[in-house]
Amino acid sequence: MDCTFIIFGATGDLASKKIFPAIYYLKKKGQIRNFSIVAIGRRDLDIKSVLEKSKKYIKNIDTKIFSQIVSKSHYFQLDFDDKVKYNELGKLIEKVENKNKSTNRLFYLATLPNFFEKISENLAKCGLVKNKGWSRIVFEKPFGENLQSARRINKTLKKIFKEDQIYRIDHYLGKELVQNILFLRFTNSMFESILNKEYVDHVQIILSEKIGIKGREGYYDQYGALKDVVQNHMFQILSLISMEAPKKMVDEKIRDEKVKVLKKARIEDVVLGQYKGYLNEKDVRKNSRTETFAALEMSIVNSRWRGVPFYLFTGKAMKKSIATVHIQFKKPKCLMGVCNYLPNYLSIQLAPEEGFYMQLNAKAPGVSTIVPVKMEYCHNCTFGPNTPRAYENLLVNILEGDKTVFVRTDEIEEAWDLIDKIKKNKLKVFSYKKGSYPLSADSLIKSRGSWHLKEK
Amino acid sequence: MDCTFIIFGATGDLASKKIFPAIYYLKKKGQIRNFSIVAIGRRDLDIKSVLEKSKKYIKNIDTKIFSQIVSKSHYFQLDFDDKVKYNELGKLIEKVENKNKSTNRLFYLATLPNFFEKISENLAKCGLVKNKGWSRIVFEKPFGENLQSARRINKTLKKIFKEDQIYRIDHYLGKELVQNILFLRFTNSMFESILNKEYVDHVQIILSEKIGIKGREGYYDQYGALKDVVQNHMFQILSLISMEAPKKMVDEKIRDEKVKVLKKARIEDVVLGQYKGYLNEKDVRKNSRTETFAALEMSIVNSRWRGVPFYLFTGKAMKKSIATVHIQFKKPKCLMGVCNYLPNYLSIQLAPEEGFYMQLNAKAPGVSTIVPVKMEYCHNCTFGPNTPRAYENLLVNILEGDKTVFVRTDEIEEAWDLIDKIKKNKLKVFSYKKGSYPLSADSLIKSRGSWHLKEK
Repeated sequence: MDCTFIIFGATGDLASKKIFPAIYYLKKKGQIRNFSIVAIGRRDLDIKSVLEKSKKYIKNIDTKIFSQIVSKSHYFQLDFDDKVKYNELGKLIEKVENKNKSTNRLFYLATLPNFFEKISENLAKCGLVKNKGWSRIVFEKPFGENLQSARRINKTLKKIFKEDQIYRIDHYLGKELVQNILFLRFTNSMFESILNKEYVDHVQIILSEKIGIKGREGYYDQYGALKDVVQNHMFQILSLISMEAPKKMVDEKIRDEKVKVLKKARIEDVVLGQYKGYLNEKDVRKNSRTETFAALEMSIVNSRWRGVPFYLFTGKAMKKSIATVHIQFKKPKCLMGVCNYLPNYLSIQLAPEEGFYMQLNAKAPGVSTIVPVKMEYCHNCTFGPNTPRAYENLLVNILEGDKTVFVRTDEIEEAWDLIDKIKKNKLKVFSYKKGSYPLSADSLIKSRGSWHLKEK
Repeated sequence: MDCTFIIFGATGDLASKKIFPAIYYLKKKGQIRNFSIVAIGRRDLDIKSVLEKSKKYIKNIDTKIFSQIVSKSHYFQLDFDDKVKYNELGKLIEKVENKNKSTNRLFYLATLPNFFEKISENLAKCGLVKNKGWSRIVFEKPFGENLQSARRINKTLKKIFKEDQIYRIDHYLGKELVQNILFLRFTNSMFESILNKEYVDHVQIILSEKIGIKGREGYYDQYGALKDVVQNHMFQILSLISMEAPKKMVDEKIRDEKVKVLKKARIEDVVLGQYKGYLNEKDVRKNSRTETFAALEMSIVNSRWRGVPFYLFTGKAMKKSIATVHIQFKKPKCLMGVCNYLPNYLSIQLAPEEGFYMQLNAKAPGVSTIVPVKMEYCHNCTFGPNTPRAYENLLVNILEGDKTVFVRTDEIEEAWDLIDKIKKNKLKVFSYKKGSYPLSADSLIKSRGSWHLKEK
């Protein structure tokens, strides 16, 4: 897997925390060989100091390997608006390619979203995306801020790139247990036969974060929980959990099914919240009504899921950081004249722990009492803690041209359509204390139980 | 729970290894209070030396408690044929009862089976079973050696006892994980929905023993694997795994369903074996054709199980001691165009490990390869290693009058009927080396896979 990584916004957090460490780990494992990095930023810096920042995000660093990467890398100072200077960038890339014997170009836009269109257009104008090898462009969310803006961006990109050159990263899709959802569902007869309205009582998707909005205040206040998390991560998980089996385990078939199920998704109810103290955070607008918490009840109007509520729960300044999918099954009807037992559920732990477990009923020792017990699969225990991090998986997929875990234009637009429908109504934003959440969120799920806000 | 334990065969292995230790543990946990032991044997002994033998089978013994038990106990020398002396026994029991303030009598026949009828008749003749409190009689297998002899014994017993006074112990039914089978099956919607011919490919019941027939040579050579293990333990497990849900979780309803399913069980194929060296064991008949190994293919001709093979595997001098139930599910039909994955199975570990696990398919880290992973429930890890032993559970059930785990007359007779059908045909007995088993047993299961001869 050879290529030149051309990284815009190389001096930012995303690059130093995620992208450079992922490149390091891939190099260390020998998964990439003939590669180099062209790091692009607006400030006058040198490559060594730019890469140096990522050192503290690499565990047990092998400084020799790190130095090898530095020696293969270049820094290029660029004002993203400076059309003329893109020609110069093109020359640098060619020089690097000659040395490196690879003509593949991976353009990674680790910049603020308002530069996406500008940079793409400038790359096109200077002919940088018409090279001998492949060229692929990588973006991170947000992909617009509503359906209209997303359509405009997608239109611009379509003029320059084919759909299969565009890699929209939703980093949740890089997580091992998110990637596992389709395999679990469709290669196990056990799950395949019970994941439908006959057996499932309801589904919860929980994505709670203990941190507030520190470091992202200005950005966050413009977006809020619905646009920052629900539109992307949560709708992606929702579609993986609820989609039909793809005809083949190939990227386009999978994405076809994800879009199909999103088209059948409906918003039933929404509770929004803002944590107390949010308005005092720096760069937050006075009297901002931006939500830092959202709980949704959704339905999927198809034959598999009709009548099964899907509950989504996400927030900042929560008690704990948890990302799980909780699938609760219907209770057998007082079998054997006994009724006092709990329903079964399957919990898929996405982060920080990785694994899944099933809560079942069993007999307590020595007596005929029924007690809940857990049948568990621990991913880290099975495969060791050094399983690849999300960004390694994502980079490998981009290099291999596997688009399974990247988000297609139509998925983006369907997801924005749902968010726009919520935003149309001026919903009340409940206030909640840090470490808690609005009480109304409990009312939302009450008819089916309560939020499963724990790892285990 | 008050009673007098009247134990025939009190100097034998069963009494010292299982019955006395179980009484000790129940006393220690405070589960029995006003009780005493009348230990009966043919030799001239005293109670201290009789009970002393069981000391080495008690873990972390509290000698104070043990002495308390000794002081409440009596030894009574009796030739089981000596009708007259039963009157004397009656007087001793009455004396003990007066002191003990309990009129409940638990007659435990820990003797060779050929004494069952004799002792019962003599107890009846001397009026020992017509007392103020309850009287219950406890036997251990074998309950006869074929349908005819079992019917004769049952007939004799029926004249003396009502069915609900008779407790036939199959000690496998005292095991925690065997007792768990019905709870697992019927209080979990997940299992309830998939344990049928739509989803199950086949079932294996494995009961392999590393030991040979040491210490039981004479007895064993008369019986063999089919009568010693298949007729009781294995058919009991088979009926628990395959029976329909009882209307109520009460003993008679459960036993009704067990009998119903045994009536629908058919023998499809049988492979017998005898380990090399068996004929040299002491007390084994010259040219004995007694089988020390049996593998069966069975079917159950009802709407739940029609077409699903049930394979039974049991033997002496096997490689390992394992008791498990392995339920293999059908494989999904190349879902997503991928076919190279294994079928799911549920393994219930009865002994020596206790628990259950499900083998599932998941994605291997970093790549799109499907690998089998295990979702596990460990009984000992959950409830600690000091969960009650089989005989404690059994004694508690007898004292409480709960007959769920004891074997009813009609179950015994249905089971013998199946064994008689096998015995009718003079089957070849294959020779096998200790630590292995006859190759033909592999052919038996070949169309569905192979024997799952491991705990995990």
